[in-house]
Amino acid sequence: MKRNLLPFLLLIPFLLLAGTKRAADYGLKIGVLPPGPLNAITDVKGVKVGHVTIIKGDSVRTGVTAILPHGGNLFQEKVPAAVYVGNGFGKLTGSTQVEELGNLETPIILTNTLSVPVAAGALIDYTLGLPGNEAVRSVNPLVGETNDGWLNDIRGRHVTKQHVLQAIHSAKSGRVEEGCVGAGTGTVCFGFKGGIGTASRKLPESIGGWTVGVLVQSNFGGVLQIAGAPVGRELGAFYLSDRLNSTADGSCMIVVATDAPLSARNLKRLAKRALFGLARIGGIGSNGSGDYVIAFSTAKEARVPYRQKDAFQQNKRLRNERMSPLFLAAIEATEEAILNSLFAATTTRGFMGREVEALPMDKVLNILKQHRLINERREAP
Amino acid sequence: MKRNLLPFLLLIPFLLLAGTKRAADYGLKIGVLPPGPLNAITDVKGVKVGHVTIIKGDSVRTGVTAILPHGGNLFQEKVPAAVYVGNGFGKLTGSTQVEELGNLETPIILTNTLSVPVAAGALIDYTLGLPGNEAVRSVNPLVGETNDGWLNDIRGRHVTKQHVLQAIHSAKSGRVEEGCVGAGTGTVCFGFKGGIGTASRKLPESIGGWTVGVLVQSNFGGVLQIAGAPVGRELGAFYLSDRLNSTADGSCMIVVATDAPLSARNLKRLAKRALFGLARIGGIGSNGSGDYVIAFSTAKEARVPYRQKDAFQQNKRLRNERMSPLFLAAIEATEEAILNSLFAATTTRGFMGREVEALPMDKVLNILKQHRLINERREAP
Amino acid sequence: MKRNLLPFLLLIPFLLLAGTKRAADYGLKIGVLPPGPLNAITDVKGVKVGHVTIIKGDSVRTGVTAILPHGGNLFQEKVPAAVYVGNGFGKLTGSTQVEELGNLETPIILTNTLSVPVAAGALIDYTLGLPGNEAVRSVNPLVGETNDGWLNDIRGRHVTKQHVLQAIHSAKSGRVEEGCVGAGTGTVCFGFKGGIGTASRKLPESIGGWTVGVLVQSNFGGVLQIAGAPVGRELGAFYLSDRLNSTADGSCMIVVATDAPLSARNLKRLAKRALFGLARIGGIGSNGSGDYVIAFSTAKEARVPYRQKDAFQQNKRLRNERMSPLFLAAIEATEEAILNSLFAATTTRGFMGREVEALPMDKVLNILKQHRLINERREAP
Amino acid sequence: MKRNLLPFLLLIPFLLLAGTKRAADYGLKIGVLPPGPLNAITDVKGVKVGHVTIIKGDSVRTGVTAILPHGGNLFQEKVPAAVYVGNGFGKLTGSTQVEELGNLETPIILTNTLSVPVAAGALIDYTLGLPGNEAVRSVNPLVGETNDGWLNDIRGRHVTKQHVLQAIHSAKSGRVEEGCVGAGTGTVCFGFKGGIGTASRKLPESIGGWTVGVLVQSNFGGVLQIAGAPVGRELGAFYLSDRLNSTADGSCMIVVATDAPLSARNLKRLAKRALFGLARIGGIGSNGSGDYVIAFSTAKEARVPYRQKDAFQQNKRLRNERMSPLFLAAIEATEEAILNSLFAATTTRGFMGREVEALPMDKVLNILKQHRLINERREAP
Repeated sequence: MKRNLLPFLLLIPFLLLAGTKRAADYGLKIGVLPPGPLNAITDVKGVKVGHVTIIKGDSVRTGVTAILPHGGNLFQEKVPAAVYVGNGFGKLTGSTQVEELGNLETPIILTNTLSVPVAAGALIDYTLGLPGNEAVRSVNPLVGETNDGWLNDIRGRHVTKQHVLQAIHSAKSGRVEEGCVGAGTGTVCFGFKGGIGTASRKLPESIGGWTVGVLVQSNFGGVLQIAGAPVGRELGAFYLSDRLNSTADGSCMIVVATDAPLSARNLKRLAKRALFGLARIGGIGSNGSGDYVIAFSTAKEARVPYRQKDAFQQNKRLRNERMSPLFLAAIEATEEAILNSLFAATTTRGFMGREVEALPMDKVLNILKQHRLINERREAP
Repeated sequence: MKRNLLPFLLLIPFLLLAGTKRAADYGLKIGVLPPGPLNAITDVKGVKVGHVTIIKGDSVRTGVTAILPHGGNLFQEKVPAAVYVGNGFGKLTGSTQVEELGNLETPIILTNTLSVPVAAGALIDYTLGLPGNEAVRSVNPLVGETNDGWLNDIRGRHVTKQHVLQAIHSAKSGRVEEGCVGAGTGTVCFGFKGGIGTASRKLPESIGGWTVGVLVQSNFGGVLQIAGAPVGRELGAFYLSDRLNSTADGSCMIVVATDAPLSARNLKRLAKRALFGLARIGGIGSNGSGDYVIAFSTAKEARVPYRQKDAFQQNKRLRNERMSPLFLAAIEATEEAILNSLFAATTTRGFMGREVEALPMDKVLNILKQHRLINERREAP
Repeated sequence: MKRNLLPFLLLIPFLLLAGTKRAADYGLKIGVLPPGPLNAITDVKGVKVGHVTIIKGDSVRTGVTAILPHGGNLFQEKVPAAVYVGNGFGKLTGSTQVEELGNLETPIILTNTLSVPVAAGALIDYTLGLPGNEAVRSVNPLVGETNDGWLNDIRGRHVTKQHVLQAIHSAKSGRVEEGCVGAGTGTVCFGFKGGIGTASRKLPESIGGWTVGVLVQSNFGGVLQIAGAPVGRELGAFYLSDRLNSTADGSCMIVVATDAPLSARNLKRLAKRALFGLARIGGIGSNGSGDYVIAFSTAKEARVPYRQKDAFQQNKRLRNERMSPLFLAAIEATEEAILNSLFAATTTRGFMGREVEALPMDKVLNILKQHRLINERREAP
Repeated sequence: MKRNLLPFLLLIPFLLLAGTKRAADYGLKIGVLPPGPLNAITDVKGVKVGHVTIIKGDSVRTGVTAILPHGGNLFQEKVPAAVYVGNGFGKLTGSTQVEELGNLETPIILTNTLSVPVAAGALIDYTLGLPGNEAVRSVNPLVGETNDGWLNDIRGRHVTKQHVLQAIHSAKSGRVEEGCVGAGTGTVCFGFKGGIGTASRKLPESIGGWTVGVLVQSNFGGVLQIAGAPVGRELGAFYLSDRLNSTADGSCMIVVATDAPLSARNLKRLAKRALFGLARIGGIGSNGSGDYVIAFSTAKEARVPYRQKDAFQQNKRLRNERMSPLFLAAIEATEEAILNSLFAATTTRGFMGREVEALPMDKVLNILKQHRLINERREAP
């Protein structure tokens, strides 16, 4: 299976602008499936992402990330969705209704732990205010979070309703900013600076041609492994390494989008596989890590209109036995999205003067080279 | 099994003050177990309840009810807890962490659907502000809701942080106000005015002597049955009665407290039984009804300290085979709590000039008499 | 909503033959929806039921009941299905695959606790042996059970593969035998003789015209309530009545069939509602009661072919908001099915000389009359 | 953290006898925690494993593996346990009762898919026959399976009750045979011969000193990764590699034992982490893979006596925040156990003349060397 290099060539201008390289730019090959053109959640047509980064003075390092399954009125045109709770030490709100009804009716908001209520409130504002929703009296906001309280003055609760609305309104398709942006501004991953990351996989046409895109907010720990290389171990930085009671806590929020027309049941199965990607990069689902996956389908024929005269959904849904390639895609895209979050994040100083370093790329590349996981020619283009 | 009449005699002054009678005051016998002295959730020692009722002008009919498992710092002294999702068309927040960790770290707040975020935010304020919690950076607020949007201008979102804090701070042990108060101010149940209701059961000492107390926010539909009598049918007012597409939607929040030292697993089983009480009174768990049960144990020996040097909980927990009497208690107390919510609620006029009548007690008592479910002498003391 | 009396008239010859009357024959009205023509699970077109009753000597009182969603090759033409675990103290096998894949590929077998393996083995035999299944190497048998060890020499394990195959092969549509037959031969319910019972509800055409049929194997306890009347209490026979530690254990298996085209998710919701019917008749889900519900849809357009070239299911599925009438139907049919199991069962003497009496119908009818729940004219036709 | 080499030295005689080397013998380092002395599930004191390997003629390649949490009467002295369903396309029986009651009352049996019923029946025989169980009328057998129908004449159902009883009775502590034995006789993993594998991790005393042992029956697919090296990719043998619709189906049964005194809730969390180990080696949880984890605690103080006068368990249980090191241990032990199953398995010819090759160790070691994951000196001792 060959990768089409064209998408990477098209990205070169962006990379120069951004000044950072993503995992694939180093020739790192995560898995066996090819990425979509942007290698991002926005490869799933219609998906939009918006970030609001909140940095103030010495102590505020937080933000909001909004993911929109489509650009229309989500309350009126719900999408099939599922939430999988990997480890429930977290404050994600909205999961029970998604589980019961099998659909999602608001944008997804990611933010910090103590700002879930303000974000949920903003989603209600947003939904009540949309044209056509004048009679709506019930809204199920879906908000996930990780705890950025190490670098951010989280108790100060600096996220406002306006930040959340701005994240929604600024959401766009195309390239997704990664690293210390939006909900990833203050997060920590494997002891290094974490953040937002994204990636995608596109199945060959012969098995459906579906795209699976993933976006993560990485803020967890464990024993970092990059493309299989024991990077955490070789850096001497891993859970239980220094002091036996060092923490692997944090959390990871994972959003999985696909254009395959899946039932809520199969979306839940897909969501479950995203955790495999977290495991592959060395996450351990530590006690204090709230690891959640939200999965949704953007397929037009799978949408769930709010009101409809007809008693039936006239849906076509992918059969169970067609799911395995999608599972693989979700695993690979999640692993790479987390990796991208680490590669894009930069050293950050924040609350109480604490500093969290970016992944030391020189050392990391050295380790990867030693383990012959990167192609030396491609590694330095 | 005889009922001790003393508690009822002691309640007479309250009854006169309140001007309403509870189910038991009419001689209605729900089940076979005796109630606690107050026949209220507050019979479980340490439990406190606070209401804030918000009535403004023609349109605002809502409120907040707070339930405190104990009067101390819940974050520092968590209680074992479980959430059972009867029907997840609801916006209860905090359930995944309770499920994962098996404990509860904030008061429980009940309010209206669109005010969950403001209540969750207030619980964070409250928790961060408690002495001893200065370093706390993560709080799991537990907030349930039902939709009072028929009688209340729910889109106006009139519940504020202050209302929520006031409900917490005014929480007290002793008699619990029922009917159109707190989170029950604007609810509708079986087409009549619903509200807050409470009841309890106390097991004989020979099988543990434990108390189970229940508090409900009743806002659902179905086919009303009182102490078994087909009241809804005989009143001609029930789901599918008038027009086939009449609604049974709404929601029911049920809070179950016990002093039995239960594991989270057995609390979840207990919570599940509360739904049996809802079924007995004629609830059907309609598609649009968010029916949730929160159960917790107040047993001192079951508490979970936030920080503790010892790696172990030194707990004694009730064995599985001792659970059945508690299950029966939860069923009966839930049925009677819902009934009490209906008996105490009064005709309410609210949003858009809509009026929801109280249960027509004359007719109801007549039906109960015809079915020989109330003792005629006791019915009019 | 009027009941059509014709079906009852047609049943009169059967009733005379059978010598027993069902709940409806006494004029008892369970709920508000009309039953189907047979008031049985077989009102759902295509469903077949087969019983093998095993009575030998003094000690063997057991059997097998088979429920077939359709008469074809179920492995090749699976049906959407769900299992809801009310209380998991039971040995039902096959649930995890039904949950994961959302479908059922064998007949459902009910039998006694210790005979689940032999029944599961027989279902494999049956499935492997069907024409067209020559290459099948994996079968998910679905077998439920209750414990008839009070009246039956359960440790003797008298159910054989042949019994199970016979139950499948003798399955037929039409009237369903109730009481001490098949898997209900040795069961005990509320301290009286339990057994197999069935009932159905048919929705008015205006809300879909769907039929919901239920079959139960009743073997559980609690506080018996018939059509709302406190029969258990008035008979002085209920959980905790005599001695405080008397048992309510046992189990209840409930099978729910519908011709509505439901997704597995909505079938699970429907299954959950069947427990409401168990609650209404006084079941408490005691610790030792394995209470399970299996629900499936017979709708042709919802079937899941084993092999199919097309990657998609081209299904129409009922929308969430159309579910509530079906929920009500499942509740009422379950309540009535359990009642029918009690009414049809006869006093049985078995293992160790133990005898379990049938419900004392004279007394019961008296209680029902006193509570004015039966129409005196219809009660004695 | 250094590894104590002594255990490996002590194993040398066994290794010579066995003629195969385990992952650790090649110097492969899976994770960061040290193994127990045997690097096997039997490092958890009291755990016993028994295999019965069934090889007959050209076509029968199957077997039975029994895992005993302790050597006593498990029905009388149950152990806390949990089952986690990774992907429920499987026939594991007994899960709902373990989930409801939180304990295990029989040995665990692993076998092939179509032999689950015979194994469950044998467990009932075994349990009923134990001294002290004369009055037992209800048994919850726990049997897991994978499908060995590629190499084994699975439809012939060659496993008998005697095989199962023999596996139980021959169970012993000490070294565990791996590869093509017992329930692993006919399994296939990543397209190579799979089988039984085991491994363990022992926490440093400072964080509890607990042991976590894992045993797997490997029969699944994906993209093989060994200690992080992309072995499957470099061998050109992985899911979707040859033909896009090649299968990754199969199944994986994982049994996790620990001496830490865990509640059923925390055992379920531990079980969930075992799937991370499966993910790390390249498993994808394909649609047709029944991936289940059974976890139990052998801690004496956590045992659950069948009958007990006292209403309480007087347990000490490990607190939530002590779980993370155990999670890491379960992940690493699972990854290594699967690896060991592959390393120990030998090329097998079976049903229909099909042959499945063992992992080509020469090529694999070459790949591992190229990626510098094995220490060249240690690799050939």
